[in-house]
Amino acid sequence: MGGDGSSKARDRASLRRTNLALVLRLLRDAGPRPRTQIATETGLPKATITNLVAELVERGLVREGDSARDGAVGRPSRTLAIDGRSVCGIGLEISADYVHLIALDLRGEVAAEHRLPLDARAAGPDAVLDRAAEAIRATRRTLQGRKAQAVAVTVAAPGVIQRDSGVVSYAPNIGWRDVDVVGGLRERLGRGCPPVRLENDAKLGAVAEYLVAAQAGIHDLIYVTGETGVGGGIISDGRLLRGSAGFAGEIGHMRLAPDGKPCACGRQGCWETMVGLNALLEHAAAPDDPVRDPSVDLEQRLAELRRRADAGEPATRAALDKIADGLGLGLTVLADVLNPRAIVLGGYFAYFGDHFIAQVENELTARVVAPDAGGCTVLASTLGFTAAARGGAHASLDFVYQDPGGTMAAPG
Amino acid sequence: MGGDGSSKARDRASLRRTNLALVLRLLRDAGPRPRTQIATETGLPKATITNLVAELVERGLVREGDSARDGAVGRPSRTLAIDGRSVCGIGLEISADYVHLIALDLRGEVAAEHRLPLDARAAGPDAVLDRAAEAIRATRRTLQGRKAQAVAVTVAAPGVIQRDSGVVSYAPNIGWRDVDVVGGLRERLGRGCPPVRLENDAKLGAVAEYLVAAQAGIHDLIYVTGETGVGGGIISDGRLLRGSAGFAGEIGHMRLAPDGKPCACGRQGCWETMVGLNALLEHAAAPDDPVRDPSVDLEQRLAELRRRADAGEPATRAALDKIADGLGLGLTVLADVLNPRAIVLGGYFAYFGDHFIAQVENELTARVVAPDAGGCTVLASTLGFTAAARGGAHASLDFVYQDPGGTMAAPG
Repeated sequence: MGGDGSSKARDRASLRRTNLALVLRLLRDAGPRPRTQIATETGLPKATITNLVAELVERGLVREGDSARDGAVGRPSRTLAIDGRSVCGIGLEISADYVHLIALDLRGEVAAEHRLPLDARAAGPDAVLDRAAEAIRATRRTLQGRKAQAVAVTVAAPGVIQRDSGVVSYAPNIGWRDVDVVGGLRERLGRGCPPVRLENDAKLGAVAEYLVAAQAGIHDLIYVTGETGVGGGIISDGRLLRGSAGFAGEIGHMRLAPDGKPCACGRQGCWETMVGLNALLEHAAAPDDPVRDPSVDLEQRLAELRRRADAGEPATRAALDKIADGLGLGLTVLADVLNPRAIVLGGYFAYFGDHFIAQVENELTARVVAPDAGGCTVLASTLGFTAAARGGAHASLDFVYQDPGGTMAAPG
Repeated sequence: MGGDGSSKARDRASLRRTNLALVLRLLRDAGPRPRTQIATETGLPKATITNLVAELVERGLVREGDSARDGAVGRPSRTLAIDGRSVCGIGLEISADYVHLIALDLRGEVAAEHRLPLDARAAGPDAVLDRAAEAIRATRRTLQGRKAQAVAVTVAAPGVIQRDSGVVSYAPNIGWRDVDVVGGLRERLGRGCPPVRLENDAKLGAVAEYLVAAQAGIHDLIYVTGETGVGGGIISDGRLLRGSAGFAGEIGHMRLAPDGKPCACGRQGCWETMVGLNALLEHAAAPDDPVRDPSVDLEQRLAELRRRADAGEPATRAALDKIADGLGLGLTVLADVLNPRAIVLGGYFAYFGDHFIAQVENELTARVVAPDAGGCTVLASTLGFTAAARGGAHASLDFVYQDPGGTMAAPG
């Protein structure tokens, strides 16, 4: 009961943080508006709003724009809007084939981008983290040149990660086990390094896809990405579903394959043995076919398969049909459990989207117990291989939207 | 931009509603406390709190209790607490075998309970709704005698429901299709009838289980209930997962059964064909065994199976093992997708919980891709067959916690 002076000071600081965040998020979600309208909409006194806005402007998060008439009578007052050129969030994806960095400013515009081709398995964790740190340093220099700063770095990694400790526990497709990604990057970046966080790549891909889908009023979606592994990210009622320990969305390992084929994870019958990239390649081509040669660039091999499918080559068409069957099986299970408004196919599933979507949608309609597949649409991702890095950059910007006062003043 | 006088009045009314709800939920979640502490914690001015509290007291939602010293200095101020004896939420479950009503007061105490045995399939929708309306009327009379009122009725129905229209679309296990439950009850209850809503029974069961689990710090759970059908309710980060059209949790129809047995839903291979009550009975006993006689009360038949299992009767033990296998299969799929902290077994799964839990937990540990099954525990429900009605009563009380000012003054 009650509290002493220092706990009251803490309460006040926490209240101010909450209110700064409230105002900043209102401007993001509802668009530019004058101070008086912000006061009405937040229920906070006008003097408080004036004071909060002053801090947000000083930190370079909000700018004053055009005048607007506030209501039918009274003097015109200036409209406030998200500024955001001075702060950026960085997303950095580590995949089997590349390291990819995207920096987005507070308004979601791309401020910087780097893509480094790399065989992550062959290079090993140390070399990959060296390259990742270089990319982050280069980006920070670029941003500093524009008087902007990076508020946080969110790393997207394939596989099972421990979010609290920043460790990749297990990423079979790049051969990593217990790699301290956050610690390794912090050490390389040294003092003054922005906060670094780790998240699963498919979860961050889902965040990026949701920012697109929300424009169309879609707030429940599943992002399903097909690469060597099959990953998933679930958005439910506008929120990323993490589960109790951050492991939700491990859909590639649902035990659905009736033949019980061994999986890279050491278990049997995982869904990704039916629909992962290797299943497609094995169905489509003989072992000595160049599309199965891992030394050839993946995008080239997919383009060749695409060419064959478009030419009506029977083995390729049959392989794609078989993958569509398997996709249908897993997606109906997910639709029965989660009732998404949309399933967004990423990775190679998106690349062959036109071959998969009709077949999978028919399967959903026939099979899902809710009427009309519960209203679910299947879409191909339009973000391609940028989804995870882009989602990471957005997650980094969340630092600002959660605690605008915590943002360091822009340098220079 | 801006607004005219009437939109400002609307803004003020909406702000007052938000603030009343904020104060009431604070008292529910954080316990009794004095006005000054509420002001600090909500960030609202003291005069506003005094005013809001006066309305909550007048409506019988909050009462003044003992004095407490507010901080190290200053005069003692009186503690406020949820009162709630004057308002109740009603939950009413329609199942294959009974109609069950529970009224809970605002503090979650049982204020009234009715259980009517009934063969819902044989009786048909009209007779079932007649009985349900009678139970609601009787309960309202009981509550009125105590100067309390029912703020809402939430009906729990088995199967696929349309929440917006209040229609049961499809409930194969009671043979209903397109039954307008909310409309039918409103018609029978006439004028002055409190708001009536419809929800899926397993979702409401999950809500009730969550209120128990939250005490133990569990905020991600899956409630899995085994009856003739198999239903599911998912709580993710403390929120009921509904999906885009309210159909989430149809886990009984996940296509997992390799033998593709026909299901009551008309599809094949549904999980409930492996683990539903009929699968247990078929594995455990010959067709002429009395435990398979539907005219004998279900609880008696389960008690007989229980006796045989405890006596080590081989067919019964083998049948339970087989169900545990099937449970393990489906629950590992759910754990990979959702990463729950707990899976709560309800219905007949809870009745044989001691036979299932160890086997299912071993399967989760061996099979789920996250380390240590992602931290998931398997529990048997302790709410038995009351879970859905109890969850419905809590959902009804939500009307008050969302809009305390919307509560009609208590009669008398």
